[in-house]
Amino acid sequence: MKIALAQINTRIGDFEANLSKILSCISRAKSEGADLVVFPELIVCGYPPLDFLEFEDFVKRSQIAVRKIADACHGIAAIVGAPDENPVPEGKNLFNAAFFLQNGRVESVVHKTLLPTYDVFDEYRYFEPNHNVFECITCKGKKIALTICEDLWDIEEDKMYTLWPMDKLVVQKPDLMINIAASPFSYGHDVSRKRVLHKAASDYGLPLFYVNHVGAQTELIFDGGSMVLNRNGNIVCELNYFEEDFRIFDLGHINTAPAVDFKLASAFRPEEVNIEAIHRALILGVRDYFSKLGFKKAILGLSGGIDSAVVYALAVEALGKDKVLGVLMPSQYSSDHSISDALLLAKNLGAATETIPIQPAFKELMHSLEHGFAGKPADVTEENIQARIRGVLLMALSNKHGYILLNTSNKSEAAVGYGTLYGDMCGGISVIGDLYKTHVYSLARHINRDKEVIPENILLKAPSAELRPDQKDSDSLPEYDILDEILYQYIEQRLGPAEITAKGYDAKLVARILKMVNTNEYKRYQTPPVLRVSPKAFGLGRRMPIVGHYLS
Amino acid sequence: MKIALAQINTRIGDFEANLSKILSCISRAKSEGADLVVFPELIVCGYPPLDFLEFEDFVKRSQIAVRKIADACHGIAAIVGAPDENPVPEGKNLFNAAFFLQNGRVESVVHKTLLPTYDVFDEYRYFEPNHNVFECITCKGKKIALTICEDLWDIEEDKMYTLWPMDKLVVQKPDLMINIAASPFSYGHDVSRKRVLHKAASDYGLPLFYVNHVGAQTELIFDGGSMVLNRNGNIVCELNYFEEDFRIFDLGHINTAPAVDFKLASAFRPEEVNIEAIHRALILGVRDYFSKLGFKKAILGLSGGIDSAVVYALAVEALGKDKVLGVLMPSQYSSDHSISDALLLAKNLGAATETIPIQPAFKELMHSLEHGFAGKPADVTEENIQARIRGVLLMALSNKHGYILLNTSNKSEAAVGYGTLYGDMCGGISVIGDLYKTHVYSLARHINRDKEVIPENILLKAPSAELRPDQKDSDSLPEYDILDEILYQYIEQRLGPAEITAKGYDAKLVARILKMVNTNEYKRYQTPPVLRVSPKAFGLGRRMPIVGHYLS
Repeated sequence: MKIALAQINTRIGDFEANLSKILSCISRAKSEGADLVVFPELIVCGYPPLDFLEFEDFVKRSQIAVRKIADACHGIAAIVGAPDENPVPEGKNLFNAAFFLQNGRVESVVHKTLLPTYDVFDEYRYFEPNHNVFECITCKGKKIALTICEDLWDIEEDKMYTLWPMDKLVVQKPDLMINIAASPFSYGHDVSRKRVLHKAASDYGLPLFYVNHVGAQTELIFDGGSMVLNRNGNIVCELNYFEEDFRIFDLGHINTAPAVDFKLASAFRPEEVNIEAIHRALILGVRDYFSKLGFKKAILGLSGGIDSAVVYALAVEALGKDKVLGVLMPSQYSSDHSISDALLLAKNLGAATETIPIQPAFKELMHSLEHGFAGKPADVTEENIQARIRGVLLMALSNKHGYILLNTSNKSEAAVGYGTLYGDMCGGISVIGDLYKTHVYSLARHINRDKEVIPENILLKAPSAELRPDQKDSDSLPEYDILDEILYQYIEQRLGPAEITAKGYDAKLVARILKMVNTNEYKRYQTPPVLRVSPKAFGLGRRMPIVGHYLS
Repeated sequence: MKIALAQINTRIGDFEANLSKILSCISRAKSEGADLVVFPELIVCGYPPLDFLEFEDFVKRSQIAVRKIADACHGIAAIVGAPDENPVPEGKNLFNAAFFLQNGRVESVVHKTLLPTYDVFDEYRYFEPNHNVFECITCKGKKIALTICEDLWDIEEDKMYTLWPMDKLVVQKPDLMINIAASPFSYGHDVSRKRVLHKAASDYGLPLFYVNHVGAQTELIFDGGSMVLNRNGNIVCELNYFEEDFRIFDLGHINTAPAVDFKLASAFRPEEVNIEAIHRALILGVRDYFSKLGFKKAILGLSGGIDSAVVYALAVEALGKDKVLGVLMPSQYSSDHSISDALLLAKNLGAATETIPIQPAFKELMHSLEHGFAGKPADVTEENIQARIRGVLLMALSNKHGYILLNTSNKSEAAVGYGTLYGDMCGGISVIGDLYKTHVYSLARHINRDKEVIPENILLKAPSAELRPDQKDSDSLPEYDILDEILYQYIEQRLGPAEITAKGYDAKLVARILKMVNTNEYKRYQTPPVLRVSPKAFGLGRRMPIVGHYLS
């Protein structure tokens, strides 16, 4: 029996284009002699469809597409993920389903049992879980234990559910397992995923075919990496990461094939993240954000600092050097090196720049505000005005020429509110908003791995917002290596102040940082979506009260 | 047996203040002869705690508070809502629990069975549902069927769950029901709530004590309206709406007390909403947003139009006339009446204004952008620049003087993207962002019910953004009565294009409007939280893909 894995990139709600991509994979699989072609979870409607699932019209269009796919399944079978209607009035209206299609019809439907409802996942919002139907499907005389993503996942120690679908299916003595998934990237997640799939295949003693989404959907980046494991849990083959892929495997050859080596890491600290994978994820994230919205050109502000330098380099790599405009907006406080460093960067990238000094507009606005400020002394307000003038200029160029503005904030400053709302916090998408400052440096060094793209001076100088004379980030913030460690303990590890302090940090500093994080929730609420590369990014996956009084 | 209902307003995570408020209610209840005092759902930690529930530290502080409350329960019993730890490793780590406290200890704990996971609710994200423990509690010899909010709610036709806690409890022959709730306001929801509670009391033939949260938590406004119903389902008494309240009832007198009349409405169309309730909700929403964040003063831009007029009037009512600054920022396109109307409004309100013309800054910015615009013709960019200069000025005054900026966008323009991101879409909180334009007019007339607060001319003139000569909203948008009806069908009723067209609207117009809604998701993602007064507000309760291609 030959099984094809179709790791494709679909767009949410674009039923026609998704259908056409699925049909062409089926046709290819058939012509290449496959008996069964397997697609990822909810591939027909795109993932995550979010509240579109609450529209009958959306669900109907998906059903029509599934029928059309079934029509194409002659001489070949297919498994596709799509929502299925719950026929009884009790419970939620939909199931998250895998449709097994052959002989021109829906042969059977498997409903997802374990519905992830944590971090970025909200599946219980839409779906009724399967409680009591556990049946293997049969294809070409082989019995298949078919599960959907999370159904195979909860086999680690901290169990989140109370029911295990594979335990129900294994008693029917299946010949193999298939799992269809929509499992987004985060650093370290690829390793966890392999550990889980290895454990499933070896515990149940069955070969496992795993097919995952690829492509970015706003903040979520699906990394692909579909794979086949033999009954010992060894990975026989991995599909490509961060791009579409299609491969056919002969079930008869799986168990005799030599295992591909893979390392099981045990933990991942901030300094141990896989920068290369993050780099590829961000490129895909930027590229898909633009292509799926139908945009081609990006704009960003260039400060001469590390954050905008990294975003500029990523954007040029993702979109092309003729598609990215860097804008220098010097003020009276800008150092000479901030301009020369930014220009050297642009030269290295071969990309265009525009320079617009902000003093004239700043002077005029300060004049307009003379009465309103009533002689009060200068404070952070004047710094914010400069940042907001830059926001106005960037958005003006964006509107006039059809650029999308790239936000250049990093996770450290977003966490503590070290940024100006409607100023440097503007943008359509936040490219490095899930990277702590120390990670941004690692990424810059990775970008420079073969040749100097980002000028060394940008990597060496002390970070500064340059909004007042001789300002340094370290005037208002702890050094980034300390700050990032504490933020990581609070945000990713969800430790409280006593637990963090017990790790050897100063209690007052910890309290101050946690308070900054919590009281700046109102700013993060209004920022662009953040490309997610960590297990806990700001945005969809982290929901915090704005009005509250906890550690604040 | 005497039962006290303590309808209080607590702050999320403010354990010390919440505890002190709860203890003083217990002490008052005891001194007034009550046997039992009942508090709302999750009152100890505040509602909704959101992802703070993922912090062990947060849960521990809540547990300590529950123990302290138990310590105070001598000679009186109490029921308080708080998270409870799940002792087994399987399933989520917490239960949403009602603690029954008497004799200085936790006498028993009831876990919530039905976990709302839709619209603004994410309870399955945090809690394990109760599956199989259904036990009445006993207080003063009376058997009480104690449930938590949703547990009593799913008795309508479209059942969302597959288990009904009261059906399990009623076989134990309880003497009464108690339901502790955190049920936020939306227009019409008070009527649904009464219908549900009426049905529960009369179906089970039991008196029902219902206690709800009051107070606003960012976007969610809890309206209180706790109540007691007799075994016929008649409402014996309602506690106050939109404010804290405390009442003691004698169980023995409930069934003989005369029923208070209440009307059961069957539907609510946009024009049938209860404007008076919306008015009170918004006042509470603004007041609590400020007081819970520790701010006193508001600022807003005054355009001379209806939206800013209504927000100005609401802010003055909520915060006091000496606490609200209205800022006029005329441009070359501003009509004379936009200035005179705004000034007359301020005079009527007795509140201060400041006037800052924006032409000088606009001219200077256009000059700065000369090269960047490369001789391209004027378009919407120049309109956006004007709106963004106003944003910069308002935020500057806000930063300098410690005002919170009030956003004045309405739901119609937020829906179709008729607004400038980082311009008029700025603000800490969106006051009328859940009111369609036609509702804003109704609210303005309601504000003017006794005397003219909002000048009649503001109510009569055609809506205009005044960003180019002789501009009218109707140049780019359909008339608001048509637009709002179509938006309502799509947003609140979740109908698709064919279903809306079938109601008698032009198919092309419907397609155009739905496309505007979907393609402007990226703007709404970055807007301030919206005070929620409808069953489907933008924000937390409506989660849509930004990158997608459905009806777009």
